Amino acid sequence: MARIVMKFGGTSVANVERIKTVARHVAREVAAGHEVAVIVSAMAGKTNELVAWTRETAVLHDAREYDTVVASAEQVTTGLLAIALQEIGVSARSWQGWQVPIETDDAHGTARIRAIDGKVLIERLKEGQVAVISGFQGVAPSGRITTMGRGGSDTSAVAVAAALHADRCDIYTDVDGVYTTDPRIVAKARRLDRISYEEMLEMASLGAKVLQTRSVELAMNHHVKVMVRSSFAEPESLAPALSANEGRIGTLVCDEDEIVEQQIVSGIAYSKDEAKITLLKVEDKPGVAARVFGPLAESNINVDMIVQNVSDDGRYTDMTFTVPVADYERAEKVISAAKADIGYKELRGSTNIVKISVIGVGMRSHAGVAAKMFRALADKGINILAITTSEIKVSILIDAAYTELAVRTLHSLYGLDKN
Amino acid sequence: MARIVMKFGGTSVANVERIKTVARHVAREVAAGHEVAVIVSAMAGKTNELVAWTRETAVLHDAREYDTVVASAEQVTTGLLAIALQEIGVSARSWQGWQVPIETDDAHGTARIRAIDGKVLIERLKEGQVAVISGFQGVAPSGRITTMGRGGSDTSAVAVAAALHADRCDIYTDVDGVYTTDPRIVAKARRLDRISYEEMLEMASLGAKVLQTRSVELAMNHHVKVMVRSSFAEPESLAPALSANEGRIGTLVCDEDEIVEQQIVSGIAYSKDEAKITLLKVEDKPGVAARVFGPLAESNINVDMIVQNVSDDGRYTDMTFTVPVADYERAEKVISAAKADIGYKELRGSTNIVKISVIGVGMRSHAGVAAKMFRALADKGINILAITTSEIKVSILIDAAYTELAVRTLHSLYGLDKN
Repeated sequence: MARIVMKFGGTSVANVERIKTVARHVAREVAAGHEVAVIVSAMAGKTNELVAWTRETAVLHDAREYDTVVASAEQVTTGLLAIALQEIGVSARSWQGWQVPIETDDAHGTARIRAIDGKVLIERLKEGQVAVISGFQGVAPSGRITTMGRGGSDTSAVAVAAALHADRCDIYTDVDGVYTTDPRIVAKARRLDRISYEEMLEMASLGAKVLQTRSVELAMNHHVKVMVRSSFAEPESLAPALSANEGRIGTLVCDEDEIVEQQIVSGIAYSKDEAKITLLKVEDKPGVAARVFGPLAESNINVDMIVQNVSDDGRYTDMTFTVPVADYERAEKVISAAKADIGYKELRGSTNIVKISVIGVGMRSHAGVAAKMFRALADKGINILAITTSEIKVSILIDAAYTELAVRTLHSLYGLDKN
Repeated sequence: MARIVMKFGGTSVANVERIKTVARHVAREVAAGHEVAVIVSAMAGKTNELVAWTRETAVLHDAREYDTVVASAEQVTTGLLAIALQEIGVSARSWQGWQVPIETDDAHGTARIRAIDGKVLIERLKEGQVAVISGFQGVAPSGRITTMGRGGSDTSAVAVAAALHADRCDIYTDVDGVYTTDPRIVAKARRLDRISYEEMLEMASLGAKVLQTRSVELAMNHHVKVMVRSSFAEPESLAPALSANEGRIGTLVCDEDEIVEQQIVSGIAYSKDEAKITLLKVEDKPGVAARVFGPLAESNINVDMIVQNVSDDGRYTDMTFTVPVADYERAEKVISAAKADIGYKELRGSTNIVKISVIGVGMRSHAGVAAKMFRALADKGINILAITTSEIKVSILIDAAYTELAVRTLHSLYGLDKN
């Protein structure tokens, strides 16, 4: 017997039929003798409808009222799932953020959890009652409803798992685990049995949308074991959590030292969400970087990769950097407006690029991962536009046309292809 | 300066456009210097959608979870209206039942208000902030969300008005007041400037759907003055509450002694929601009424009018009574099942009837109101099937085909036609 937290996102509870399937997933774990808390999101599409109404009412709206409106959607799901569970003979009740309570700060719309008092919930779990908890929401010190920003339900789930001292937090999603790369691009992509928190963090921040970045950080800090499983599998086809053969389906996100056979590289991620801006013939004098990136920071535009070359005559430099594609036009305007102050000859931009990343904690102890990568891509005639590295990651920028070729090449190169 | 409560139902807040109109109604009262609390229902159709989901999930569902699901709809309206008010420069915040708190008993789905602590709300009102409160919902002693049954928002409004010691409770609806009778039947129907609680209660229980019965009882008990006004009028076309000329539109429901020129009859109501059952040749012996009405009461069927005639030979009696048309088939079955025990020859039923009621507190001091009524209907050849009377009401049952003729005849008879 163990205590587990199960989390189901919007597509998993999109309608009553899907909610009934979720109830069967929960019933399977209860039948295995587990104490279960379930975190649910809004039914798919409902949050968008509510957000649209707040915008229709006023473009600039009070974040506290926005939270009041939007949090109502999770409330609906909890009630319906509790009913669905009772209908198949599983004792259950719904809990809203303010009822638990899940205490957050007062940053409405992007609230962070401060404390969860798990005492009452644990009592109920011990009595055999399933707790169905609204994800994404909490209560501020003022007593008002807060929400944690889109995707916050993963974070709720991990935080509740930590508060309940749960043995595991199972995130049910529309994929059955974390893959070595996108299976739509590489047919030979393998599902990973295990992945470390650090690697998962890099994957998450690089657009592998399996888990929300913040939830992985939280899991890492509190040593909460997270399992990614499929909510679309027939509930009775999955083995209950922590049983001998449960590993057949799912990826466990855990501490590095719990992964016995660590690969040098665990996965290849790619992101088309970046745009490239190159400033030609920037005067190469002190403070130029500040003059370029200061205005961007003031406009809340995140700059990711930065490359600077000195040009032939030594007086000028070319500068290339990337911004989120959604901010591309805004970034162009900001830079153009500062042209006189920066002093550059020409701005060239492109959204037709991709960032490809090789991720693996094994890089820490293995030299030459990057060199091997550059050589393999050169062999295929792929030009690298920019490079950044971290302790467990090498990212490169290339022309988007080469995305598939580069991902497949690297996937083979590091021995990730499945047999 | 006064303190007023304004209540807007589902059709008044059906979409964002309508909610913005409601905000203008509120702004008008704030501009007049009033402290304002607003009670809102769910956007029209939303409650039905949520109820349908609970039924789709399980036919017999936990009333506590039903309440959790359904109460979410009012929450959305409060947030949107608060945003709409802020957008036009009116300070406002939303309040859910548990935040006020509006304490109810634990009869989920049909909860009754036990106490409202108005202290915090009054503080905020005094600071000039409009309180936008979810109608229809409260919080049980267990801390769970309760709802008060369909139409409960009127009751919420009156209860909040009592708790806030409000000078008036204005119920905005899709009509501009209470009429002497249904204007769709009698073109000469007049809007009443004032009506007494007692008369309004009779009107409400007879199917004039302007106010919910319970809300009128509550208003009467707490001496809350209630004004029925139109939410569909241009907000700026209405005079603010309690101003000299506000009476132009709306009907005030108040104590009898606040109505100076009391008419003998205030209104004519009719209800097609009744069905008639006649039992022919019931043996006329002690206890027969108990044998007929006992089984109906056990089946939760409300019997309204009862008429009993002794037949020619004195051994048998004919018995006629009415039940809600929705319970008609069930009532027939209950009586048929008890046929041997009751001992009657034949059951004849009809749904093709109407109950017409003449209402007025003036009847208390004026004799002959009923006699005048019977004579006028007889002159038109209308046969009366049953009669019941109360202190301020005479109700008759007639063939539904004569509905319009009877209502028009009585409307003229008691001088209610407008000039």
